[in-house]
Amino acid sequence: MVTGTAFIDGKYMPVGEAKISILDFGVIHADATYDVAHVINRRIYRPDWHLDRFFNSAKGLRLEIPHTKEEILEISKNCLKKSGFNDAFIWMGCTRGIPESGSPRDLASCKNKFFMYVKQYYGMLMNEVNTETDGMRLMISDIVRIPKEAINPKFKNFHWGDLTKSQFVALDNKVDSALTVDLNGNIEEGPGFNIFMVKGGVVRTPKEGMLEGITRRSTLEICKEEGIKTELTVITPKELFNDSDEVFITSTAGGITWVKSLYLNGEEKTFEYGPTTKKLSDIYWQKHSDPDWSMSID
Amino acid sequence: MVTGTAFIDGKYMPVGEAKISILDFGVIHADATYDVAHVINRRIYRPDWHLDRFFNSAKGLRLEIPHTKEEILEISKNCLKKSGFNDAFIWMGCTRGIPESGSPRDLASCKNKFFMYVKQYYGMLMNEVNTETDGMRLMISDIVRIPKEAINPKFKNFHWGDLTKSQFVALDNKVDSALTVDLNGNIEEGPGFNIFMVKGGVVRTPKEGMLEGITRRSTLEICKEEGIKTELTVITPKELFNDSDEVFITSTAGGITWVKSLYLNGEEKTFEYGPTTKKLSDIYWQKHSDPDWSMSID
Repeated sequence: MVTGTAFIDGKYMPVGEAKISILDFGVIHADATYDVAHVINRRIYRPDWHLDRFFNSAKGLRLEIPHTKEEILEISKNCLKKSGFNDAFIWMGCTRGIPESGSPRDLASCKNKFFMYVKQYYGMLMNEVNTETDGMRLMISDIVRIPKEAINPKFKNFHWGDLTKSQFVALDNKVDSALTVDLNGNIEEGPGFNIFMVKGGVVRTPKEGMLEGITRRSTLEICKEEGIKTELTVITPKELFNDSDEVFITSTAGGITWVKSLYLNGEEKTFEYGPTTKKLSDIYWQKHSDPDWSMSID
Repeated sequence: MVTGTAFIDGKYMPVGEAKISILDFGVIHADATYDVAHVINRRIYRPDWHLDRFFNSAKGLRLEIPHTKEEILEISKNCLKKSGFNDAFIWMGCTRGIPESGSPRDLASCKNKFFMYVKQYYGMLMNEVNTETDGMRLMISDIVRIPKEAINPKFKNFHWGDLTKSQFVALDNKVDSALTVDLNGNIEEGPGFNIFMVKGGVVRTPKEGMLEGITRRSTLEICKEEGIKTELTVITPKELFNDSDEVFITSTAGGITWVKSLYLNGEEKTFEYGPTTKKLSDIYWQKHSDPDWSMSID
Protein backbone atom coordinates (compact mmCIF):
# COMPACT_ATOMS: atom_id res chain seq x y z
CA MET A 1 0.00 0.00 0.00
CA VAL A 2 1.22 3.48 -0.84
CA THR A 3 1.71 5.66 2.25
CA GLY A 4 2.80 9.27 2.61
CA THR A 5 1.46 12.78 2.99
CA ALA A 6 -0.72 14.68 0.54
CA PHE A 7 -1.68 18.32 0.14
CA ILE A 8 -5.03 18.94 -1.56
CA ASP A 9 -7.77 21.57 -1.16
CA GLY A 10 -5.44 23.50 1.13
CA LYS A 11 -5.10 20.66 3.66
CA TYR A 12 -2.44 18.10 4.56
CA MET A 13 -3.60 14.48 5.00
CA PRO A 14 -2.47 10.85 4.59
CA VAL A 15 -2.16 10.19 0.84
CA GLY A 16 -4.66 7.32 1.08
CA GLU A 17 -7.35 9.87 2.00
CA ALA A 18 -6.52 12.38 -0.76
CA LYS A 19 -9.24 12.40 -3.38
CA ILE A 20 -10.33 14.50 -6.35
CA SER A 21 -13.78 15.09 -7.86
CA ILE A 22 -14.88 12.68 -10.62
CA LEU A 23 -16.09 15.81 -12.47
CA ASP A 24 -12.58 17.31 -12.73
CA PHE A 25 -11.45 17.34 -16.38
CA GLY A 26 -7.98 16.40 -15.14
CA VAL A 27 -9.55 13.08 -14.17
CA ILE A 28 -11.92 12.38 -17.08
CA HIS A 29 -10.10 14.17 -19.94
CA ALA A 30 -6.43 13.84 -18.86
CA ASP A 31 -6.54 17.64 -18.90
CA ALA A 32 -3.68 18.18 -16.49
CA THR A 33 0.05 18.33 -16.05
CA TYR A 34 2.28 16.87 -13.36
CA ASP A 35 5.86 16.48 -12.28
CA VAL A 36 7.73 14.13 -9.98
CA ALA A 37 10.85 15.26 -8.14
CA HIS A 38 12.74 13.17 -5.62
CA VAL A 39 14.54 13.50 -2.32
CA ILE A 40 17.59 11.56 -1.15
CA ASN A 41 18.92 12.03 2.39
CA ARG A 42 16.52 14.92 2.94
CA ARG A 43 17.81 16.84 -0.09
CA ILE A 44 15.51 17.64 -3.04
CA TYR A 45 17.24 16.89 -6.35
CA ARG A 46 17.14 19.76 -8.91
CA PRO A 47 13.95 21.43 -7.63
CA ASP A 48 14.74 24.26 -10.10
CA TRP A 49 14.59 21.96 -13.14
CA HIS A 50 11.43 20.20 -11.94
CA LEU A 51 9.60 23.44 -11.11
CA ASP A 52 10.66 25.06 -14.39
CA ARG A 53 9.33 22.06 -16.32
CA PHE A 54 6.13 21.95 -14.24
CA PHE A 55 5.37 25.62 -14.94
CA ASN A 56 6.39 25.30 -18.59
CA SER A 57 4.10 22.25 -19.03
CA ALA A 58 1.23 24.15 -17.42
CA LYS A 59 1.77 27.11 -19.76
CA GLY A 60 1.86 24.83 -22.79
CA LEU A 61 -1.44 23.25 -21.74
CA ARG A 62 -3.03 26.59 -20.81
CA LEU A 63 -3.23 25.72 -17.12
CA GLU A 64 -2.59 28.22 -14.35
CA ILE A 65 -0.93 26.73 -11.29
CA PRO A 66 -2.56 28.53 -8.35
CA HIS A 67 0.75 28.75 -6.42
CA THR A 68 4.18 30.27 -6.93
CA LYS A 69 7.30 28.11 -7.18
CA GLU A 70 8.26 29.29 -3.69
CA GLU A 71 4.91 28.19 -2.27
CA ILE A 72 5.24 24.79 -3.94
CA LEU A 73 8.71 24.34 -2.44
CA GLU A 74 7.26 25.21 0.97
CA ILE A 75 4.39 22.72 0.54
CA SER A 76 6.94 20.07 -0.57
CA LYS A 77 8.97 20.58 2.57
CA ASN A 78 5.85 20.41 4.75
CA CYS A 79 4.71 17.17 3.09
CA LEU A 80 8.20 15.71 3.48
CA LYS A 81 8.45 16.59 7.15
CA LYS A 82 4.97 15.26 7.89
CA SER A 83 5.71 12.04 5.98
CA GLY A 84 8.92 11.40 7.92
CA PHE A 85 10.67 10.06 4.79
CA ASN A 86 14.35 10.79 4.15
CA ASP A 87 14.19 9.40 0.58
CA ALA A 88 10.98 10.21 -1.26
CA PHE A 89 9.15 11.15 -4.42
CA ILE A 90 7.42 14.54 -4.57
CA TRP A 91 4.46 14.16 -6.92
CA MET A 92 2.79 17.46 -7.92
CA GLY A 93 -0.16 17.95 -10.27
CA CYS A 94 -2.35 20.67 -11.73
CA THR A 95 -5.72 19.76 -13.24
CA ARG A 96 -8.19 21.79 -15.31
CA GLY A 97 -10.91 21.64 -12.67
CA ILE A 98 -14.68 21.50 -13.22
CA PRO A 99 -16.45 23.51 -15.95
CA GLU A 100 -19.45 25.41 -14.61
CA SER A 101 -21.90 23.46 -16.83
CA GLY A 102 -19.88 20.25 -16.98
CA SER A 103 -19.49 20.69 -20.76
CA PRO A 104 -16.16 20.87 -22.68
CA ARG A 105 -17.61 24.05 -24.19
CA ASP A 106 -17.02 25.74 -20.81
CA LEU A 107 -13.26 25.23 -20.37
CA ALA A 108 -12.74 28.92 -19.68
CA SER A 109 -14.91 28.71 -16.55
CA CYS A 110 -12.59 26.20 -14.87
CA LYS A 111 -10.58 27.00 -11.77
CA ASN A 112 -7.34 25.02 -12.12
CA LYS A 113 -6.47 22.84 -9.16
CA PHE A 114 -3.08 22.03 -7.57
CA PHE A 115 -2.30 19.02 -5.42
CA MET A 116 0.78 17.17 -4.21
CA TYR A 117 1.81 14.06 -2.39
CA VAL A 118 5.03 12.60 -1.04
CA LYS A 119 5.71 8.87 -0.94
CA GLN A 120 8.66 6.59 -0.21
CA TYR A 121 11.40 6.56 -2.86
CA TYR A 122 12.04 3.44 -4.97
CA GLY A 123 14.13 2.61 -8.03
CA MET A 124 12.86 1.41 -11.40
CA LEU A 125 13.75 -2.15 -10.36
CA MET A 126 12.28 -1.48 -6.89
CA ASN A 127 14.38 -1.15 -3.73
CA GLU A 128 15.01 -4.84 -3.07
CA VAL A 129 17.20 -5.22 -6.19
CA ASN A 130 20.98 -4.79 -6.07
CA THR A 131 21.57 -2.62 -9.12
CA GLU A 132 25.31 -3.39 -9.15
CA THR A 133 24.63 -7.02 -10.02
CA ASP A 134 21.11 -6.88 -11.43
CA GLY A 135 20.34 -4.82 -14.49
CA MET A 136 17.05 -4.30 -16.24
CA ARG A 137 15.47 -6.80 -18.63
CA LEU A 138 14.06 -4.58 -21.33
CA MET A 139 12.04 -5.48 -24.39
CA ILE A 140 11.84 -3.47 -27.59
CA SER A 141 8.12 -3.56 -28.39
CA ASP A 142 6.20 -2.38 -31.43
CA ILE A 143 3.79 -0.31 -29.33
CA VAL A 144 3.45 3.11 -30.98
CA ARG A 145 4.09 6.16 -28.79
CA ILE A 146 1.54 8.99 -29.19
CA PRO A 147 3.25 11.30 -31.72
CA LYS A 148 4.33 14.80 -30.73
CA GLU A 149 2.07 16.26 -33.44
CA ALA A 150 -0.96 15.15 -31.39
CA ILE A 151 0.28 15.48 -27.80
CA ASN A 152 3.45 17.42 -27.08
CA PRO A 153 5.55 15.17 -24.81
CA LYS A 154 7.56 18.19 -23.60
CA PHE A 155 4.51 19.06 -21.52
CA LYS A 156 4.41 16.24 -18.96
CA ASN A 157 0.90 14.81 -19.06
CA PHE A 158 -1.46 11.99 -18.12
CA HIS A 159 -1.68 10.51 -21.67
CA TRP A 160 -0.13 7.19 -20.74
CA GLY A 161 -2.26 4.71 -22.75
CA ASP A 162 0.63 3.81 -25.06
CA LEU A 163 3.05 3.41 -22.14
CA THR A 164 0.48 1.33 -20.25
CA LYS A 165 0.19 -0.97 -23.28
CA SER A 166 3.98 -1.36 -23.35
CA GLN A 167 4.02 -2.21 -19.64
CA PHE A 168 1.40 -4.90 -20.26
CA VAL A 169 3.54 -6.30 -23.10
CA ALA A 170 6.43 -6.46 -20.61
CA LEU A 171 4.26 -8.29 -18.03
CA ASP A 172 3.09 -10.73 -20.72
CA ASN A 173 6.71 -11.45 -21.64
CA LYS A 174 7.92 -11.63 -18.03
CA VAL A 175 10.50 -8.85 -18.48
CA ASP A 176 10.87 -5.64 -16.44
CA SER A 177 9.64 -3.14 -18.99
CA ALA A 178 9.25 -2.40 -22.70
CA LEU A 179 10.21 0.41 -25.05
CA THR A 180 7.77 2.12 -27.41
CA VAL A 181 8.53 3.27 -30.96
CA ASP A 182 7.38 6.16 -33.12
CA LEU A 183 5.14 5.77 -36.19
CA ASN A 184 8.27 5.03 -38.26
CA GLY A 185 9.33 2.27 -35.89
CA ASN A 186 12.20 4.17 -34.25
CA ILE A 187 12.87 3.94 -30.51
CA GLU A 188 11.10 6.45 -28.26
CA GLU A 189 10.93 5.70 -24.51
CA GLY A 190 9.50 3.33 -21.91
CA PRO A 191 6.85 3.88 -19.23
CA GLY A 192 8.52 6.50 -17.03
CA PHE A 193 12.03 6.41 -18.46
CA ASN A 194 14.30 7.51 -21.31
CA ILE A 195 16.69 5.16 -23.09
CA PHE A 196 20.40 5.58 -23.86
CA MET A 197 22.97 3.50 -25.75
CA VAL A 198 26.76 3.77 -25.55
CA LYS A 199 28.68 2.99 -28.73
CA GLY A 200 32.44 3.60 -29.16
CA GLY A 201 32.42 5.95 -26.15
CA VAL A 202 29.58 8.10 -27.53
CA VAL A 203 26.38 8.36 -25.47
CA ARG A 204 23.30 8.39 -27.72
CA THR A 205 19.61 8.92 -26.98
CA PRO A 206 16.48 9.64 -29.04
CA LYS A 207 16.15 13.26 -30.06
CA GLU A 208 12.40 13.85 -30.02
CA GLY A 209 8.95 12.39 -29.50
CA MET A 210 9.66 11.41 -25.89
CA LEU A 211 9.44 13.24 -22.56
CA GLU A 212 12.58 15.20 -21.85
CA GLY A 213 13.26 13.60 -18.48
CA ILE A 214 15.16 15.39 -15.71
CA THR A 215 17.47 12.38 -15.32
CA ARG A 216 18.03 12.43 -19.11
CA ARG A 217 18.93 16.11 -18.77
CA SER A 218 21.22 15.31 -15.81
CA THR A 219 22.95 12.60 -17.84
CA LEU A 220 23.56 14.90 -20.80
CA GLU A 221 24.84 17.62 -18.43
CA ILE A 222 27.21 15.20 -16.66
CA CYS A 223 28.51 13.96 -20.04
CA LYS A 224 29.24 17.58 -20.94
CA GLU A 225 31.12 18.16 -17.66
CA GLU A 226 33.09 14.94 -18.17
CA GLY A 227 33.89 15.56 -21.84
CA ILE A 228 31.88 12.54 -23.00
CA LYS A 229 30.46 12.98 -26.50
CA THR A 230 26.65 12.81 -26.80
CA GLU A 231 24.30 12.49 -29.77
CA LEU A 232 20.57 13.26 -29.77
CA THR A 233 19.50 11.24 -32.76
CA VAL A 234 17.20 8.65 -34.33
CA ILE A 235 17.83 5.13 -33.00
CA THR A 236 16.32 2.09 -34.72
CA PRO A 237 15.46 -1.09 -32.77
CA LYS A 238 18.11 -3.04 -34.73
CA GLU A 239 20.75 -0.40 -33.99
CA LEU A 240 19.98 -0.45 -30.26
CA PHE A 241 19.94 -4.25 -30.22
CA ASN A 242 22.99 -4.94 -32.44
CA ASP A 243 25.31 -1.94 -32.08
CA SER A 244 25.25 -1.02 -28.37
CA ASP A 245 28.32 -1.51 -26.16
CA GLU A 246 26.20 -0.50 -23.15
CA VAL A 247 22.52 0.31 -22.70
CA PHE A 248 20.95 2.20 -19.80
CA ILE A 249 17.71 3.92 -18.89
CA THR A 250 17.21 7.16 -16.98
CA SER A 251 14.35 7.91 -14.63
CA THR A 252 13.60 9.85 -11.47
CA ALA A 253 12.80 6.37 -10.10
CA GLY A 254 16.28 4.93 -9.69
CA GLY A 255 18.41 7.35 -11.70
CA ILE A 256 20.70 5.71 -14.27
CA THR A 257 19.87 1.99 -14.40
CA TRP A 258 21.85 -0.36 -16.62
CA VAL A 259 20.15 -2.77 -19.00
CA LYS A 260 21.28 -6.36 -18.58
CA SER A 261 19.13 -7.95 -21.27
CA LEU A 262 17.54 -6.51 -24.39
CA TYR A 263 14.82 -8.44 -26.23
CA LEU A 264 13.88 -7.92 -29.87
CA ASN A 265 11.62 -10.23 -31.88
CA GLY A 266 12.12 -13.07 -29.38
CA GLU A 267 15.92 -12.80 -29.37
CA GLU A 268 17.88 -11.85 -26.24
CA LYS A 269 21.15 -9.94 -26.04
CA THR A 270 22.99 -9.48 -22.75
CA PHE A 271 25.20 -6.62 -21.58
CA GLU A 272 27.67 -5.96 -18.76
CA TYR A 273 27.34 -3.09 -16.26
CA GLY A 274 29.66 -1.03 -18.51
CA PRO A 275 32.25 1.58 -17.48
CA THR A 276 30.47 4.58 -19.03
CA THR A 277 27.14 3.71 -17.42
CA LYS A 278 28.84 3.11 -14.05
CA LYS A 279 30.75 6.39 -14.23
CA LEU A 280 27.64 8.40 -15.12
CA SER A 281 25.60 6.70 -12.39
CA ASP A 282 28.27 7.32 -9.75
CA ILE A 283 28.51 11.01 -10.63
CA TYR A 284 24.70 11.28 -10.77
CA TRP A 285 24.45 10.05 -7.16
CA GLN A 286 27.32 12.32 -6.03
CA LYS A 287 25.34 15.28 -7.39
CA HIS A 288 22.64 14.52 -4.79
CA SER A 289 24.82 16.04 -2.04
CA ASP A 290 26.13 18.90 -4.23
CA PRO A 291 24.45 22.21 -3.20
CA ASP A 292 24.41 23.30 -6.87
CA TRP A 293 22.31 20.24 -7.74
CA SER A 294 20.18 19.68 -4.65
CA MET A 295 18.52 21.55 -1.77
CA SER A 296 18.21 20.55 1.87
CA ILE A 297 14.66 20.42 3.24
CA ASP A 298 15.90 21.35 6.72
CA MET B 1 -22.67 23.93 -10.94
CA VAL B 2 -23.16 20.30 -11.92
CA THR B 3 -25.75 18.51 -9.78
CA GLY B 4 -26.98 14.94 -9.81
CA THR B 5 -26.44 11.57 -8.17
CA ALA B 6 -23.28 9.49 -8.16
CA PHE B 7 -22.51 5.88 -7.30
CA ILE B 8 -18.95 5.22 -6.12
CA ASP B 9 -17.38 2.80 -3.60
CA GLY B 10 -20.75 1.08 -3.33
CA LYS B 11 -22.59 4.21 -2.14
CA TYR B 12 -24.99 6.72 -3.66
CA MET B 13 -24.26 10.42 -3.02
CA PRO B 14 -24.61 13.90 -4.55
CA VAL B 15 -22.21 14.04 -7.53
CA GLY B 16 -20.41 17.05 -6.02
CA GLU B 17 -19.25 14.79 -3.17
CA ALA B 18 -18.09 11.89 -5.38
CA LYS B 19 -14.30 11.68 -5.37
CA ILE B 20 -11.60 9.28 -6.44
CA SER B 21 -8.08 8.67 -5.09
CA ILE B 22 -5.27 10.76 -6.60
CA LEU B 23 -3.28 7.48 -6.67
CA ASP B 24 -5.71 5.77 -9.09
CA PHE B 25 -4.00 5.21 -12.46
CA GLY B 26 -7.31 6.10 -14.11
CA VAL B 27 -6.69 9.60 -12.76
CA ILE B 28 -2.94 10.05 -13.28
CA HIS B 29 -2.36 7.81 -16.35
CA ALA B 30 -5.73 8.08 -18.15
CA ASP B 31 -5.83 4.31 -17.61
CA ALA B 32 -9.59 3.94 -17.80
CA THR B 33 -12.60 3.65 -20.02
CA TYR B 34 -15.98 5.32 -19.83
CA ASP B 35 -19.29 5.66 -21.60
CA VAL B 36 -22.09 8.19 -21.55
CA ALA B 37 -25.67 7.15 -22.24
CA HIS B 38 -28.68 9.44 -22.03
CA VAL B 39 -32.27 9.45 -20.89
CA ILE B 40 -35.17 11.36 -22.41
CA ASN B 41 -38.59 11.29 -20.73
CA ARG B 42 -37.38 8.64 -18.30
CA ARG B 43 -36.34 6.28 -21.11
CA ILE B 44 -32.68 5.22 -21.52
CA TYR B 45 -31.61 5.42 -25.15
CA ARG B 46 -29.93 2.27 -26.55
CA PRO B 47 -28.60 0.94 -23.22
CA ASP B 48 -27.62 -2.23 -25.16
CA TRP B 49 -25.29 -0.34 -27.51
CA HIS B 50 -23.74 1.72 -24.71
CA LEU B 51 -23.16 -1.26 -22.43
CA ASP B 52 -21.75 -3.37 -25.29
CA ARG B 53 -19.30 -0.58 -26.13
CA PHE B 54 -18.41 -0.02 -22.46
CA PHE B 55 -17.57 -3.71 -21.95
CA ASN B 56 -15.77 -3.93 -25.30
CA SER B 57 -13.67 -0.85 -24.44
CA ALA B 58 -12.80 -2.36 -21.06
CA LYS B 59 -11.75 -5.62 -22.71
CA GLY B 60 -9.60 -3.77 -25.24
CA LEU B 61 -7.86 -1.90 -22.42
CA ARG B 62 -7.53 -5.01 -20.22
CA LEU B 63 -9.87 -3.63 -17.57
CA GLU B 64 -12.38 -5.78 -15.71
CA ILE B 65 -15.61 -3.99 -14.87
CA PRO B 66 -16.56 -5.30 -11.42
CA HIS B 67 -20.28 -5.44 -12.28
CA THR B 68 -22.50 -7.21 -14.81
CA LYS B 69 -24.47 -5.27 -17.43
CA GLU B 70 -27.64 -6.03 -15.46
CA GLU B 71 -26.12 -4.57 -12.27
CA ILE B 72 -25.03 -1.44 -14.14
CA LEU B 73 -28.56 -0.98 -15.52
CA GLU B 74 -29.90 -1.32 -11.97
CA ILE B 75 -27.39 1.25 -10.64
CA SER B 76 -28.33 3.58 -13.52
CA LYS B 77 -32.00 3.38 -12.62
CA ASN B 78 -31.23 4.00 -8.94
CA CYS B 79 -29.09 7.05 -9.77
CA LEU B 80 -31.82 8.37 -12.09
CA LYS B 81 -34.56 7.95 -9.52
CA LYS B 82 -32.48 9.56 -6.75
CA SER B 83 -31.53 12.45 -9.07
CA GLY B 84 -35.14 13.18 -9.98
CA PHE B 85 -34.20 14.02 -13.59
CA ASN B 86 -36.44 13.00 -16.49
CA ASP B 87 -33.79 13.90 -19.10
CA ALA B 88 -30.25 13.05 -18.09
CA PHE B 89 -26.80 11.79 -18.95
CA ILE B 90 -25.64 8.52 -17.42
CA TRP B 91 -21.85 8.74 -17.13
CA MET B 92 -20.12 5.43 -16.24
CA GLY B 93 -16.40 4.80 -15.82
CA CYS B 94 -13.97 2.03 -14.99
CA THR B 95 -10.44 2.91 -13.87
CA ARG B 96 -7.34 0.75 -13.38
CA GLY B 97 -7.19 1.41 -9.63
CA ILE B 98 -4.07 1.67 -7.45
CA PRO B 99 -1.03 -0.58 -7.91
CA GLU B 100 0.12 -2.13 -4.61
CA SER B 101 3.52 -0.36 -4.77
CA GLY B 102 2.35 2.69 -6.70
CA SER B 103 4.63 1.74 -9.60
CA PRO B 104 3.56 1.13 -13.23
CA ARG B 105 5.49 -2.14 -12.89
CA ASP B 106 2.63 -3.40 -10.68
CA LEU B 107 -0.36 -3.03 -13.02
CA ALA B 108 -1.41 -6.62 -12.41
CA SER B 109 -2.00 -5.89 -8.70
CA CYS B 110 -4.69 -3.29 -9.44
CA LYS B 111 -8.33 -3.80 -8.51
CA ASN B 112 -10.32 -2.06 -11.26
CA LYS B 113 -12.88 0.45 -10.04
CA PHE B 114 -16.37 1.27 -11.35
CA PHE B 115 -18.27 4.48 -10.74
CA MET B 116 -21.22 6.30 -12.25
CA TYR B 117 -23.07 9.56 -12.07
CA VAL B 118 -26.23 11.03 -13.51
CA LYS B 119 -26.59 14.70 -14.41
CA GLN B 120 -29.11 16.90 -16.22
CA TYR B 121 -29.25 16.43 -20.02
CA TYR B 122 -28.12 19.22 -22.35
CA GLY B 123 -27.47 19.52 -26.07
CA MET B 124 -24.15 20.33 -27.76
CA LEU B 125 -25.33 23.94 -28.09
CA MET B 126 -26.72 23.83 -24.53
CA ASN B 127 -30.41 23.82 -23.67
CA GLU B 128 -31.12 27.51 -24.14
CA VAL B 129 -30.54 27.35 -27.91
CA ASN B 130 -33.37 26.74 -30.39
CA THR B 131 -31.80 24.16 -32.68
CA GLU B 132 -34.44 24.72 -35.38
CA THR B 133 -33.16 28.24 -36.00
CA ASP B 134 -29.66 28.12 -34.55
CA GLY B 135 -27.11 25.71 -35.92
CA MET B 136 -23.55 25.15 -34.84
CA ARG B 137 -20.64 27.40 -35.78
CA LEU B 138 -17.86 24.91 -36.44
CA MET B 139 -14.25 25.51 -37.34
CA ILE B 140 -12.00 23.10 -39.21
CA SER B 141 -8.76 23.29 -37.23
CA ASP B 142 -5.33 21.82 -37.93
CA ILE B 143 -5.15 20.18 -34.50
CA VAL B 144 -3.95 16.60 -34.99
CA ARG B 145 -6.08 13.82 -33.47
CA ILE B 146 -4.12 11.10 -31.63
CA PRO B 147 -3.74 8.39 -34.32
CA LYS B 148 -5.38 5.00 -33.91
CA GLU B 149 -1.97 3.32 -34.09
CA ALA B 150 -1.11 4.84 -30.69
CA ILE B 151 -4.51 4.93 -28.92
CA ASN B 152 -7.40 2.93 -30.36
CA PRO B 153 -10.37 5.34 -30.47
CA LYS B 154 -12.80 2.40 -30.62
CA PHE B 155 -12.08 1.97 -26.91
CA LYS B 156 -13.63 5.10 -25.38
CA ASN B 157 -10.93 6.68 -23.21
CA PHE B 158 -9.74 9.74 -21.29
CA HIS B 159 -7.06 10.74 -23.85
CA TRP B 160 -8.63 14.08 -24.70
CA GLY B 161 -5.60 16.38 -24.99
CA ASP B 162 -6.04 16.81 -28.74
CA LEU B 163 -9.77 17.47 -28.37
CA THR B 164 -9.11 19.91 -25.52
CA LYS B 165 -6.69 21.81 -27.78
CA SER B 166 -9.36 21.99 -30.50
CA GLN B 167 -11.91 23.30 -27.99
CA PHE B 168 -9.45 26.04 -26.98
CA VAL B 169 -8.95 26.93 -30.65
CA ALA B 170 -12.75 27.27 -30.89
CA LEU B 171 -12.87 29.51 -27.81
CA ASP B 172 -10.04 31.65 -29.23
CA ASN B 173 -11.97 32.04 -32.48
CA LYS B 174 -15.34 32.63 -30.77
CA VAL B 175 -17.04 29.70 -32.51
CA ASP B 176 -18.86 26.77 -30.89
CA SER B 177 -16.36 24.03 -31.53
CA ALA B 178 -13.57 22.82 -33.81
CA LEU B 179 -12.77 19.68 -35.77
CA THR B 180 -9.48 17.80 -35.55
CA VAL B 181 -7.65 16.16 -38.45
CA ASP B 182 -5.48 13.07 -38.81
CA LEU B 183 -1.72 13.18 -39.52
CA ASN B 184 -2.51 13.48 -43.25
CA GLY B 185 -4.75 16.48 -42.66
CA ASN B 186 -8.07 14.63 -43.21
CA ILE B 187 -11.12 15.33 -41.05
CA GLU B 188 -11.52 13.23 -37.89
CA GLU B 189 -13.94 14.47 -35.21
CA GLY B 190 -14.59 17.23 -32.69
CA PRO B 191 -14.56 17.18 -28.87
CA GLY B 192 -17.40 14.80 -28.10
CA PHE B 193 -18.94 14.51 -31.57
CA ASN B 194 -18.67 12.91 -35.01
CA ILE B 195 -19.05 14.89 -38.23
CA PHE B 196 -21.22 14.18 -41.30
CA MET B 197 -21.66 15.86 -44.68
CA VAL B 198 -24.56 15.40 -47.10
CA LYS B 199 -23.69 15.65 -50.82
CA GLY B 200 -26.14 14.78 -53.59
CA GLY B 201 -28.33 12.86 -51.16
CA VAL B 202 -25.44 10.71 -49.90
CA VAL B 203 -24.57 10.90 -46.20
CA ARG B 204 -20.80 10.73 -45.66
CA THR B 205 -18.68 10.50 -42.54
CA PRO B 206 -15.03 9.69 -41.74
CA LYS B 207 -14.29 5.98 -41.77
CA GLU B 208 -11.63 5.59 -39.06
CA GLY B 209 -9.43 7.29 -36.50
CA MET B 210 -12.37 8.70 -34.57
CA LEU B 211 -14.62 7.35 -31.80
CA GLU B 212 -17.47 5.31 -33.20
CA GLY B 213 -20.19 7.32 -31.49
CA ILE B 214 -23.57 5.80 -30.59
CA THR B 215 -25.35 8.72 -32.30
CA ARG B 216 -23.12 8.14 -35.37
CA ARG B 217 -24.21 4.49 -35.27
CA SER B 218 -27.86 5.55 -34.85
CA THR B 219 -27.58 7.87 -37.84
CA LEU B 220 -26.10 5.16 -40.07
CA GLU B 221 -28.80 2.73 -38.90
CA ILE B 222 -31.59 5.23 -39.59
CA CYS B 223 -30.14 5.94 -43.05
CA LYS B 224 -30.23 2.18 -43.75
CA GLU B 225 -33.88 1.96 -42.62
CA GLU B 226 -34.78 4.97 -44.78
CA GLY B 227 -32.86 3.82 -47.84
CA ILE B 228 -30.47 6.78 -47.69
CA LYS B 229 -27.06 5.95 -49.14
CA THR B 230 -24.08 6.29 -46.75
CA GLU B 231 -20.33 6.34 -47.28
CA LEU B 232 -17.67 5.78 -44.61
CA THR B 233 -14.72 7.45 -46.28
CA VAL B 234 -11.85 9.93 -46.14
CA ILE B 235 -13.02 13.56 -46.08
CA THR B 236 -10.61 16.42 -46.65
CA PRO B 237 -11.16 19.87 -45.09
CA LYS B 238 -11.62 21.40 -48.57
CA GLU B 239 -14.17 18.76 -49.52
CA LEU B 240 -16.18 19.33 -46.35
CA PHE B 241 -15.99 23.09 -46.79
CA ASN B 242 -16.63 23.32 -50.56
CA ASP B 243 -18.71 20.28 -51.51
CA SER B 244 -21.27 19.86 -48.72
CA ASP B 245 -24.97 20.48 -49.31
CA GLU B 246 -25.58 19.99 -45.58
CA VAL B 247 -23.28 19.43 -42.61
CA PHE B 248 -24.24 18.03 -39.23
CA ILE B 249 -22.63 16.60 -36.12
CA THR B 250 -23.74 13.68 -33.98
CA SER B 251 -23.34 13.41 -30.24
CA THR B 252 -25.07 11.93 -27.22
CA ALA B 253 -25.26 15.59 -26.15
CA GLY B 254 -27.97 16.91 -28.45
CA GLY B 255 -28.28 14.14 -31.04
CA ILE B 256 -28.05 15.29 -34.65
CA THR B 257 -27.17 19.00 -34.66
CA TRP B 258 -26.95 20.96 -37.92
CA VAL B 259 -23.96 23.09 -38.74
CA LYS B 260 -24.87 26.65 -39.70
CA SER B 261 -21.39 27.98 -40.33
CA LEU B 262 -18.17 26.24 -41.27
CA TYR B 263 -14.83 28.06 -40.96
CA LEU B 264 -11.67 27.10 -42.84
CA ASN B 265 -8.52 29.23 -42.99
CA GLY B 266 -10.46 32.35 -41.94
CA GLU B 267 -13.23 31.88 -44.52
CA GLU B 268 -16.84 31.26 -43.53
CA LYS B 269 -19.43 29.20 -45.37
CA THR B 270 -23.08 29.10 -44.26
CA PHE B 271 -25.63 26.32 -44.58
CA GLU B 272 -29.39 25.89 -44.18
CA TYR B 273 -31.02 23.40 -41.82
CA GLY B 274 -31.26 20.95 -44.73
CA PRO B 275 -33.94 18.34 -45.45
CA THR B 276 -31.77 15.25 -44.93
CA THR B 277 -30.43 16.52 -41.59
CA LYS B 278 -33.93 17.45 -40.45
CA LYS B 279 -35.36 14.07 -41.47
CA LEU B 280 -32.61 12.15 -39.69
CA SER B 281 -32.94 14.29 -36.57
CA ASP B 282 -36.73 13.87 -36.45
CA ILE B 283 -36.49 10.09 -36.77
CA TYR B 284 -33.65 10.02 -34.19
CA TRP B 285 -35.90 11.72 -31.61
CA GLN B 286 -38.85 9.46 -32.49
CA LYS B 287 -36.64 6.45 -31.70
CA HIS B 288 -36.47 7.69 -28.10
CA SER B 289 -40.01 6.43 -27.45
CA ASP B 290 -39.60 3.25 -29.53
CA PRO B 291 -39.27 0.19 -27.21
CA ASP B 292 -36.77 -1.37 -29.65
CA TRP B 293 -34.49 1.67 -29.21
CA SER B 294 -35.06 2.73 -25.62
CA MET B 295 -35.93 1.35 -22.18
CA SER B 296 -38.17 2.83 -19.50
CA ILE B 297 -36.55 3.31 -16.11
CA ASP B 298 -39.89 2.78 -14.35
